Amino acid sequence: MNQVIETLLNHRSVRSFTDERLTEEQIRLIVESAQRASTSSFIQAYSIIGVTDSDKKARLAEIAGNQSYVADNGHFFVFCADLYRHEVIGDMRDADVTGTLETDEKLLVAVIDAALASQNAVVAAESMGLGICYIGGIRNDMFAVKELLGLPERVLPLFGLAVGVPDHVEDQKPRLPFEHVYHENTYELDPNELKRQLSHYDETIHGYYAARGANRRDDTWTAQMGRMLSKPTRLDVKDFLKAQGYLKH
Amino acid sequence: MNQVIETLLNHRSVRSFTDERLTEEQIRLIVESAQRASTSSFIQAYSIIGVTDSDKKARLAEIAGNQSYVADNGHFFVFCADLYRHEVIGDMRDADVTGTLETDEKLLVAVIDAALASQNAVVAAESMGLGICYIGGIRNDMFAVKELLGLPERVLPLFGLAVGVPDHVEDQKPRLPFEHVYHENTYELDPNELKRQLSHYDETIHGYYAARGANRRDDTWTAQMGRMLSKPTRLDVKDFLKAQGYLKH
Repeated sequence: MNQVIETLLNHRSVRSFTDERLTEEQIRLIVESAQRASTSSFIQAYSIIGVTDSDKKARLAEIAGNQSYVADNGHFFVFCADLYRHEVIGDMRDADVTGTLETDEKLLVAVIDAALASQNAVVAAESMGLGICYIGGIRNDMFAVKELLGLPERVLPLFGLAVGVPDHVEDQKPRLPFEHVYHENTYELDPNELKRQLSHYDETIHGYYAARGANRRDDTWTAQMGRMLSKPTRLDVKDFLKAQGYLKH
Repeated sequence: MNQVIETLLNHRSVRSFTDERLTEEQIRLIVESAQRASTSSFIQAYSIIGVTDSDKKARLAEIAGNQSYVADNGHFFVFCADLYRHEVIGDMRDADVTGTLETDEKLLVAVIDAALASQNAVVAAESMGLGICYIGGIRNDMFAVKELLGLPERVLPLFGLAVGVPDHVEDQKPRLPFEHVYHENTYELDPNELKRQLSHYDETIHGYYAARGANRRDDTWTAQMGRMLSKPTRLDVKDFLKAQGYLKH
């Protein structure tokens, strides 16, 4: 087991940071690490917004559902899928790129590109002893985030990333068993076997919630997922994607 | 600069592998590293299919546009967005989850979850001295990949990942300049400044293509992107997403 894999396996989200700010050098190493991630056919379809303005951070925290660690951290990044510069390239090169940019395929390309970059950023940050928390809550109001950060058409603010010196480190939540996530050659379909596996995992998660250091509760994974997925959320994501020039055909 | 960041900054895609197979232990460490990536609200909305069957690998290579390294590598993974198990949970918990699973929001969640996991897998693999290449080409025919791997509804094969002992290491392509990708507080919108930046980057890429070790050519980034984006591809991705129960409303 090398140091890199130790860093990966030791990950847990951090939701409480000291007030120490990231240095310019740390920010640059994190972003440059992000940029070295693979990118589909060299398209580089993402941008990263660092948010340092305290009013903007407070507003993002509010949008994300009043999560204090969105405002209080060492640095806050917003990762965006970005095909805006490709629209500009179409103009520079007198190439009609609009039809291509608006396909579902290019949504996948840009979202995957941004996510690969962000995970490299996370690994870089954690290797420096920093903690991170992904903030999907900015999708509670993508229109407001667009306005706040001045995003042009074809830019999608996918998630935030709070980074900083950990003030408190949480326990590590057990993941689904390896056999549940990894299949060989064929997806194991049998729903009864899947239910048996899920019940077993429920016992693991029940034990974790009952015994962890803080916020103990009586819960299981399938109960938690069942509750969460009974309530559709963020129903305006489709409108936002279309307004920004995605999924149009 | 620590060992983790060195691994990240040293990344380049590898398209030629020795015939050495990954060990069971390597596969397990790679998948377990993938599983430790952050996941949106603990949803764990992805699965990973390891493909070892040589007929299936040959077929995937064909689908991907006859890329030999899809068949010839140390191991081949297919990363899938996966909300199938959440459908089963709805059944177990007597919860009506269908409306939620079919929103655009949940497409983003599942795609981002799968991509974060895959990038951890990549970092783990590269830390062991292995090389990798993402294979977006499996999206040339997602219907065929579904059939080949026996994927149920709500599972999307997003991309492959060829992993193995590098037989040949390519040069590292220069990325967009830091200032081009990273903005502070507000997206820098001015298209003329963007064009100036892009022209400067074109010079960098022109120099890279003219001087690299193999496959030298006379090209720039905006020319390459302009050509690529003039031709819409994978127009059936939308049909596939809908057929698999995504983007339905």
